[in-house]
Amino acid sequence: MVAIMPDALWLEDFIDRALAEDIGFGDITTASVVPEDAAIRAEIEVQAEGVVCGLAVAEKIFHRVDSQLKVRSLASDGDRVSGAVMRIEGSARSALTAERTALNILQRLSGIATLTWRYVQAVAGTKTAIADTRKTTPGMRALEKYAVAVGGGRNHRFGLFDAVLIKDNHLSLAGCSLTEAIHRARQRAPHLAKIEVECATLGQVEEAVAAKADAIMLDNMSLDEMREAVRMAPGVLLEASGGITLETVRSIAETGVDLISVGALTHSAPILPMHMEVVP
Amino acid sequence: MVAIMPDALWLEDFIDRALAEDIGFGDITTASVVPEDAAIRAEIEVQAEGVVCGLAVAEKIFHRVDSQLKVRSLASDGDRVSGAVMRIEGSARSALTAERTALNILQRLSGIATLTWRYVQAVAGTKTAIADTRKTTPGMRALEKYAVAVGGGRNHRFGLFDAVLIKDNHLSLAGCSLTEAIHRARQRAPHLAKIEVECATLGQVEEAVAAKADAIMLDNMSLDEMREAVRMAPGVLLEASGGITLETVRSIAETGVDLISVGALTHSAPILPMHMEVVP
Amino acid sequence: MVAIMPDALWLEDFIDRALAEDIGFGDITTASVVPEDAAIRAEIEVQAEGVVCGLAVAEKIFHRVDSQLKVRSLASDGDRVSGAVMRIEGSARSALTAERTALNILQRLSGIATLTWRYVQAVAGTKTAIADTRKTTPGMRALEKYAVAVGGGRNHRFGLFDAVLIKDNHLSLAGCSLTEAIHRARQRAPHLAKIEVECATLGQVEEAVAAKADAIMLDNMSLDEMREAVRMAPGVLLEASGGITLETVRSIAETGVDLISVGALTHSAPILPMHMEVVP
Amino acid sequence: MVAIMPDALWLEDFIDRALAEDIGFGDITTASVVPEDAAIRAEIEVQAEGVVCGLAVAEKIFHRVDSQLKVRSLASDGDRVSGAVMRIEGSARSALTAERTALNILQRLSGIATLTWRYVQAVAGTKTAIADTRKTTPGMRALEKYAVAVGGGRNHRFGLFDAVLIKDNHLSLAGCSLTEAIHRARQRAPHLAKIEVECATLGQVEEAVAAKADAIMLDNMSLDEMREAVRMAPGVLLEASGGITLETVRSIAETGVDLISVGALTHSAPILPMHMEVVP
Amino acid sequence: MVAIMPDALWLEDFIDRALAEDIGFGDITTASVVPEDAAIRAEIEVQAEGVVCGLAVAEKIFHRVDSQLKVRSLASDGDRVSGAVMRIEGSARSALTAERTALNILQRLSGIATLTWRYVQAVAGTKTAIADTRKTTPGMRALEKYAVAVGGGRNHRFGLFDAVLIKDNHLSLAGCSLTEAIHRARQRAPHLAKIEVECATLGQVEEAVAAKADAIMLDNMSLDEMREAVRMAPGVLLEASGGITLETVRSIAETGVDLISVGALTHSAPILPMHMEVVP
Amino acid sequence: MVAIMPDALWLEDFIDRALAEDIGFGDITTASVVPEDAAIRAEIEVQAEGVVCGLAVAEKIFHRVDSQLKVRSLASDGDRVSGAVMRIEGSARSALTAERTALNILQRLSGIATLTWRYVQAVAGTKTAIADTRKTTPGMRALEKYAVAVGGGRNHRFGLFDAVLIKDNHLSLAGCSLTEAIHRARQRAPHLAKIEVECATLGQVEEAVAAKADAIMLDNMSLDEMREAVRMAPGVLLEASGGITLETVRSIAETGVDLISVGALTHSAPILPMHMEVVP
Repeated sequence: MVAIMPDALWLEDFIDRALAEDIGFGDITTASVVPEDAAIRAEIEVQAEGVVCGLAVAEKIFHRVDSQLKVRSLASDGDRVSGAVMRIEGSARSALTAERTALNILQRLSGIATLTWRYVQAVAGTKTAIADTRKTTPGMRALEKYAVAVGGGRNHRFGLFDAVLIKDNHLSLAGCSLTEAIHRARQRAPHLAKIEVECATLGQVEEAVAAKADAIMLDNMSLDEMREAVRMAPGVLLEASGGITLETVRSIAETGVDLISVGALTHSAPILPMHMEVVP
Repeated sequence: MVAIMPDALWLEDFIDRALAEDIGFGDITTASVVPEDAAIRAEIEVQAEGVVCGLAVAEKIFHRVDSQLKVRSLASDGDRVSGAVMRIEGSARSALTAERTALNILQRLSGIATLTWRYVQAVAGTKTAIADTRKTTPGMRALEKYAVAVGGGRNHRFGLFDAVLIKDNHLSLAGCSLTEAIHRARQRAPHLAKIEVECATLGQVEEAVAAKADAIMLDNMSLDEMREAVRMAPGVLLEASGGITLETVRSIAETGVDLISVGALTHSAPILPMHMEVVP
Repeated sequence: MVAIMPDALWLEDFIDRALAEDIGFGDITTASVVPEDAAIRAEIEVQAEGVVCGLAVAEKIFHRVDSQLKVRSLASDGDRVSGAVMRIEGSARSALTAERTALNILQRLSGIATLTWRYVQAVAGTKTAIADTRKTTPGMRALEKYAVAVGGGRNHRFGLFDAVLIKDNHLSLAGCSLTEAIHRARQRAPHLAKIEVECATLGQVEEAVAAKADAIMLDNMSLDEMREAVRMAPGVLLEASGGITLETVRSIAETGVDLISVGALTHSAPILPMHMEVVP
Repeated sequence: MVAIMPDALWLEDFIDRALAEDIGFGDITTASVVPEDAAIRAEIEVQAEGVVCGLAVAEKIFHRVDSQLKVRSLASDGDRVSGAVMRIEGSARSALTAERTALNILQRLSGIATLTWRYVQAVAGTKTAIADTRKTTPGMRALEKYAVAVGGGRNHRFGLFDAVLIKDNHLSLAGCSLTEAIHRARQRAPHLAKIEVECATLGQVEEAVAAKADAIMLDNMSLDEMREAVRMAPGVLLEASGGITLETVRSIAETGVDLISVGALTHSAPILPMHMEVVP
Repeated sequence: MVAIMPDALWLEDFIDRALAEDIGFGDITTASVVPEDAAIRAEIEVQAEGVVCGLAVAEKIFHRVDSQLKVRSLASDGDRVSGAVMRIEGSARSALTAERTALNILQRLSGIATLTWRYVQAVAGTKTAIADTRKTTPGMRALEKYAVAVGGGRNHRFGLFDAVLIKDNHLSLAGCSLTEAIHRARQRAPHLAKIEVECATLGQVEEAVAAKADAIMLDNMSLDEMREAVRMAPGVLLEASGGITLETVRSIAETGVDLISVGALTHSAPILPMHMEVVP
Repeated sequence: MVAIMPDALWLEDFIDRALAEDIGFGDITTASVVPEDAAIRAEIEVQAEGVVCGLAVAEKIFHRVDSQLKVRSLASDGDRVSGAVMRIEGSARSALTAERTALNILQRLSGIATLTWRYVQAVAGTKTAIADTRKTTPGMRALEKYAVAVGGGRNHRFGLFDAVLIKDNHLSLAGCSLTEAIHRARQRAPHLAKIEVECATLGQVEEAVAAKADAIMLDNMSLDEMREAVRMAPGVLLEASGGITLETVRSIAETGVDLISVGALTHSAPILPMHMEVVP
């Protein structure tokens, strides 16, 4: 999976709002206490081992506050790291004002990349990929999906617009069969959108295969059911979903499904802790 | 602590961006599969026990997608709940299109409120309050601080603008004593901003008290040091900070500090899981 | 194809910018000449026969200028019409100020829907659909794609993000074979994105089929080549593209291709002329 | 007429929205298939003869995607061209991602400039100018009026705010005479705004001249009527309007009117076709 | 002069920014001290005599904070008032939170209207009008020009876009005669834009009249010069400008000029003082 | 007091809106009359003596219009000046287009700084500081508070969010004692927000001191009352407020209060007059 950084346009707006939220009408501590001409040399250090993500975003944050700051990444997004990952030199005031916003985004994205990487490691050697979901932080989906890809995962659809995913609620509210629902989607949705259906039973899997679904989400199935689904649906993308943990993920992968989607990658990943240290 | 919901102006913009991110040019599944006139009755259910937060935000999300939807909260922000917390009736298409965005924000805010509540419970009976930090999700600080207050915590400063907090980096870069730094802040910062200083030693605490700091952050001190600081600084707000967990928080509270600030409340709280169920 | 109206959020912003551009600091003619309490009854009339599109957008424009205006559509998007399609009653000042912006959008969208409808009529009875392209007016793609669907066409991908389309320039710049390019896309692009490849020769079509492309764009092929491609690629979406006119479109459809994409639908459709008339 | 490019501020916003619409969360084809370090040399070629317009806008689009791209225009706005008009060198990924948005705006503006130029050529040798109208694409008026000027036309008022134009609807709704309407406008509108009135009869022209209108729009008059109007209204700007085509425009110009306004310049101009070619 | 209130679209944005600036993350005083269910009856009182302006804007501010507030104006824009001008009933918290922003805009606009009215009174009985300039508060021009019109003044051009005004700097930098400059403007500027020229001498006035300028700004001329200019330029709008005060304005008006423009109306008007009082 | 310039992010947006308001679709005078290649050397001159403020903002305005302009400040914010304060060289068109917007902001901010400086001079030698209020121009508070600090004043709270200020309206609507109101604020407002209370009588001052208010606003008290308040409230910030003028300010300062807040600094300061002159 190629990790696609959100375009510069979106990122600038995201960064501006993040900085405005923290700085407001000014960093009154730094402006009062630190002389205007004070210089800093500092490093951002990762205080645990993990997969770093968001270095280019952090660089942009420092530069947005002060285009004269010298900022140099000591690692690349996706590297497993501990210790220093970025060096900042220049105006002490500028660096201190940007510090918290830069750390907040770095820690969060690195937390997601690190958790994704753990899941990917857990299924290493199988042919199964780890995928994200739409259970992301409002306003940050593009960055969080980037972090998943950086951690080695695959990106599921980005929103309601770029693929069809027919869930049980759709079926019950449409009042039609799964076959009819797939038919409607093929007739009415954009022709380049793949059609995935959520199946809770092997009977539904059979129906979805017959109706030529492009992908099937196996919802909370047992390992045996998943193995059977793999047998029943050659050539169809099979995605396991529902209550998956680091403990259970490998056994699921070994059923032969193509993908395992994990909401926790984005909704409950703890941060990768970091701080900024003044260095000599 | 009164929990202050971000003003409607900010919230509308936040919601618009969140919805735009998910909906893009349209919910192609729902538009293709579910008839325009299909009706829904559904409930949002909390799938674990916790403190619910964000109900008014979720209501606004549903109404932003379709002002005709009937949305009724079955609980109030701050309630400990499990089971149904919101009922939605009206256009099936509208409810399905808004579902994920509403759940994403509800789960996250409730996760923060729930974790805060756990910390508050852990110190129950002491005079110590639990406080948040600036380690929040970029773009969501106002809502996350609201969730902390809903969970029973207190809000630390909202940004770099509404209080002075002199940290070790400020001192080393200012090249001055703590006393001089406090003096500069009193002369140069807005006169209604309180001045807090980070102290790593009791010697610094003594200096801060002498210089009339309004508040002191006790950085990674031992329990004995904190007890001594409490004795040394009557009438000064004392805040314990650094590496605090649910296991250690009570013993810290029992030292007599006024506040314990916990970054994890906002940077690493797992969500409170929820889903939307069609009901008869 | 279901026609998906851009979401209210996007539409409000679009309308606000359109009105601001025309009204600026005020409609100085109407404010000077027409009394504040003057009332109007007027109709928007289509001055030629065509497929109307954008009625809901026009209603929103009138209501954005004055929420008290009574606006009623006399037709539905997609209807073939001539004569009156909308009735407006209320403040004369408000209606006159909104008139031009409402007409500009109605005329343009109806022009696109009408041209699409002509192409769709031209292939009536075949199994071939008419599709749009990304050759749209900057800032209006969502509305223009809606108009194509209203006119009976199908929506191709909405942007660079929701499907893979490998063109000759990609191949020459990637310096790899078509097979390798498809392989890369399958490995690296989101797994729910369909993969289409542009083919200029039947040899490329053969290669694309072997590499399991989901769709193939037949670029400027002869009718014979297209017929052969249809034979070679059962189960693969085939799209004819390049220099298609109302005169040539039927013979292309009769080759059996699934889709014919026509840039002119959005880049060169003349408007469907309309005006607003005061009625008794 | 001097052609005034919309100011940089407006243009940046326009470009950002246009790019966001096309790129969304990323160009998944290019990112997947084309190596990050691939380089491109390409040219934008006009595939028919016409008046090019929008080169500076296209340059900005390429630079907005990647400030490192080398972009050089091979012509100037207003030149009659065919063949290459712009050369792009640098990152292949960047150029491919920006291509469609740049072409969409170039083709549309050049289409308007070309059609305007045809009308201007048709009246060459007379003293009559060709003018645009407010029948523009919502959100693009500033650029479209620029294109008209580049094609040799004159810009009518930009909106409802910068000149008074009293039409038949104003009169019937104001319930007053043309003389009274002009009087109201002179008393109440900004004193530097010119006052134009729409006249359908020579009687109205006579009244408008007597009331000292600055300009008169001759609405759908016969050639004889227009000639008479020219005789009746020395020193008043006379504008012919209504149903004018390339076939009829010259005979109208020969009546001696000052201006002929043509809505089709902006509402129905076909694009000037272009594409981007990789060159050795 | 008709006073044109800025359109709702612009006004909403202006109000949102004004409120955000004051409220930030919340009104911590009111939320802490005043119960959620406390009710208020209050009046806004003008504490001096003057011309009130901005009542509709203030109403919108209160309603933006709380759409449930009952707000009733007790006067109309343009009325000479002292004492109560607006009554507010409803949530005490909402009214207190909106109070300052509403007062700030009301006081400022009323200050401008009042000062304008004083100038208008000073020239009462002459045929001369008082006009504003472009010396306005950045971001508030539309409202400030509205206030001038409410006070009885006339609006000069709104910006650089809606009329031509050739000043001495233009001439010296263009390196051409006044006649040539007027000629260029007539050839190159939009044909509905009036052309005004700044003249410092009667010789320039003579040249401007010969070149058919639509209006002439008499820059810092003596009363005798102005009287002579009036004689020399029948049918041309004459505007006196430069260092005009309430003391000198009448004698200038009596020279017979059409307009006197006064920058101080918008750049140096003191506020009309007001406060909000709780009433029984 | 350190003067904190609003952050670049906010400032860019402010400048863009100010320029858009003035330039609209283009400076038609300059574009018509001044050749594209004309060069300018000009200076901004202060036409009276005062404290200059806003030079960096004006520089940004010129550079936003044309990044190639050479702009050099000849003074620093806070300097007492008369005569030239800025030199501009480069494109004549660009400088003329930016002129008015740059002057408008410079004149206004310098007017505020100058008036503040007069008040500060008036209390020279006392220990009392001059402070601003929230009576600012909507949308410009950050810049106006900056100007106050540049003029030697102190910044009061920036909005409703960064300090508690309990006024008489709060008390009457809360229906509680001053003591209880202070208690509520201490329990419920953020713990780093200082608590100020408005007192109209010495009895209230006594109550506020007993309840440990951080600051007290003495509302329209007599000099004797203020002297007594100073005696009663050692260690509490005392702020005099209400109807203060340049004539009365010194006698108030001599009572020993810490601060005197003056609304007129921002709501009624006349501009410091300036113009731009072409120089050889």
